[in-house]
Amino acid sequence: MSALDHFWAVIPAGGAGTRLWPVSRAAAPKFLHDLTGDGRSLLQHTVDRLVPLVEDRLLVVTGVAHREAVLAELPAVDPEAVVAEPSPRDSMAAIGLAAAMLERVDPLAVMGSFAADHVVTDPAAFEEAVSRAVEVAQEDWLVTLGITPTYAATGFGYIRLGEPLSGHPGVHLVADFVEKPSADVAQRYVDGRAHRWNAGMFVGRPRVLLDLLAEGDPDFADRLRAIAAEPERMDELWARLPLIAVDHAVAEPAAATGRVAVVPVDPGWDDIGDFDALAGLLGADEGRVSVLGDADLVRAIASTGLVVPGSGRLVAVVGLDDVVVVDTPDALLVTSREHAQRVKEIVAGLRETGPQHLT
Amino acid sequence: MSALDHFWAVIPAGGAGTRLWPVSRAAAPKFLHDLTGDGRSLLQHTVDRLVPLVEDRLLVVTGVAHREAVLAELPAVDPEAVVAEPSPRDSMAAIGLAAAMLERVDPLAVMGSFAADHVVTDPAAFEEAVSRAVEVAQEDWLVTLGITPTYAATGFGYIRLGEPLSGHPGVHLVADFVEKPSADVAQRYVDGRAHRWNAGMFVGRPRVLLDLLAEGDPDFADRLRAIAAEPERMDELWARLPLIAVDHAVAEPAAATGRVAVVPVDPGWDDIGDFDALAGLLGADEGRVSVLGDADLVRAIASTGLVVPGSGRLVAVVGLDDVVVVDTPDALLVTSREHAQRVKEIVAGLRETGPQHLT
Repeated sequence: MSALDHFWAVIPAGGAGTRLWPVSRAAAPKFLHDLTGDGRSLLQHTVDRLVPLVEDRLLVVTGVAHREAVLAELPAVDPEAVVAEPSPRDSMAAIGLAAAMLERVDPLAVMGSFAADHVVTDPAAFEEAVSRAVEVAQEDWLVTLGITPTYAATGFGYIRLGEPLSGHPGVHLVADFVEKPSADVAQRYVDGRAHRWNAGMFVGRPRVLLDLLAEGDPDFADRLRAIAAEPERMDELWARLPLIAVDHAVAEPAAATGRVAVVPVDPGWDDIGDFDALAGLLGADEGRVSVLGDADLVRAIASTGLVVPGSGRLVAVVGLDDVVVVDTPDALLVTSREHAQRVKEIVAGLRETGPQHLT
Repeated sequence: MSALDHFWAVIPAGGAGTRLWPVSRAAAPKFLHDLTGDGRSLLQHTVDRLVPLVEDRLLVVTGVAHREAVLAELPAVDPEAVVAEPSPRDSMAAIGLAAAMLERVDPLAVMGSFAADHVVTDPAAFEEAVSRAVEVAQEDWLVTLGITPTYAATGFGYIRLGEPLSGHPGVHLVADFVEKPSADVAQRYVDGRAHRWNAGMFVGRPRVLLDLLAEGDPDFADRLRAIAAEPERMDELWARLPLIAVDHAVAEPAAATGRVAVVPVDPGWDDIGDFDALAGLLGADEGRVSVLGDADLVRAIASTGLVVPGSGRLVAVVGLDDVVVVDTPDALLVTSREHAQRVKEIVAGLRETGPQHLT
């Protein structure tokens, strides 16, 4: 029997991706989009790289508004495996519900949680690290993957490596989880080699995860287990679940008491947090204009950056470095890679003043 | 009798305005567009500021493809006054044909030629200068308006002032016409106060203009007079007329022999040669995003420059200085004010490779 025989993948498919507006919208969030230009959405890629590890043992947890779109993207996935949240309650509720369901379905289960909207360019390294994480998790550890930093990123949280974990070469305890650092601090983290990026990937037994949650909020864990036992109580119980991320509810307190392990890995990971990251992913760092979409629609002169021609119209860019142009049928964004984070301010403004259909 | 009783305005309405692509196209050139944001096209404004001087004494010379559009823009103008060129033959042919027609219609005529796609923000100063030019032209001078330079423009030709013209205070002979200068030379022109911008405005008796032309190219003048005498010969004669600007054919050689006068004036003139000029005209120099069109469609954060929302879509601009964004239903341009001149390279590329309907 392989360690993976009872390994389940949980894919929380949520988040508006407002920094990727106007591609990503409330009605069509980031995970439904093809951001790598190969015709597959981020969600499809996420499933693609997990299927070799889990076969059909996977759950997708998504908003009720997106369930139909998710089913359409994943024709090979059993509709029963696509769980609809009545409303967004942050990652602890989504992942905790999956844990409570799996606890009942498979007493031997180890689950791994992987966001639907990240990219991994080295799936073999990813598979190998997840397999090792599953082995560690079978010993009742909560396990996370720690991504080797490739630059001094200020947009990610970090994991500080603790003592080596005996019996698992290369695996460490998590000393602590660190919030997004300043540029100076990030550079020290990279140079010091004792930090990894926190990609929010957690592997563990459902029982372990829920028991860790119960230590801080027993009522939260009870409600999740109640929903799993009586799905018809979902609407009654879901809306009052706390809004909290799994990191804060479980991973950080557990790390503080030495109960989280980390498997270091360099799987070519990115969360594509904004158009600067997307531009880098698509090769714009090489001094050219990268195009996500039909390159025949783009005419660039003396420019570098990213163009997303998404309305069928011609897009001409002249004399701009590190520019970002995102063309959609009803909204157009023009910014620079440097200011890509501020795109969310446009969305915030639109939510306030409308038109709402553009948000 | 006023000096203006026999003053005729000739408005050559041609030119593709490729540096204002994608607003200006072969099928809808610059003069047909509202570039000041008040609902009137440049052509309409040109007529508006000439009517107080000429009443109904005006001729518009335009391409056969644009005659219907011109008539639609100018419902108060007699359709007979809108002359269609069978093909574009540069400004000497267009203005010379008008001269030949007016020579027959009104033996006392003085004509002034004013491009259909320039702006004048001080029409009173313009009127006053034109009136003075007409008075001088009645003495058989060819007269031009010399625009006071307000900055060291490198995109315009200059007029060097010669001796004062006796009997007309403030009016000078033209010493010579100077090609577009380098930035250094332009600055010297501005500092020296002896140069004016050449706005291509010429005032003179039709006979004087044609006789000056005949000195260099008698056949050219003969053919223009033949077309005016027998309009049915237009197609036969027009296509073989030389392609030359009125500046080269008439104004420069006449200035070299001391037969051109210049009336200095500061009428707030601009030829809106590119989006940089348009941005300045619309107030973008004051550190904000100027909008030509529906400002409700534009959301700008930490940006300056010009946005032309022309497709009904929302245009969001984030973190870009001196940016130019021009949105039309079938093509989008993103550039900087600094590189606005290079927009014509996009048009040149499209003419080569298509799609032609976008040029």
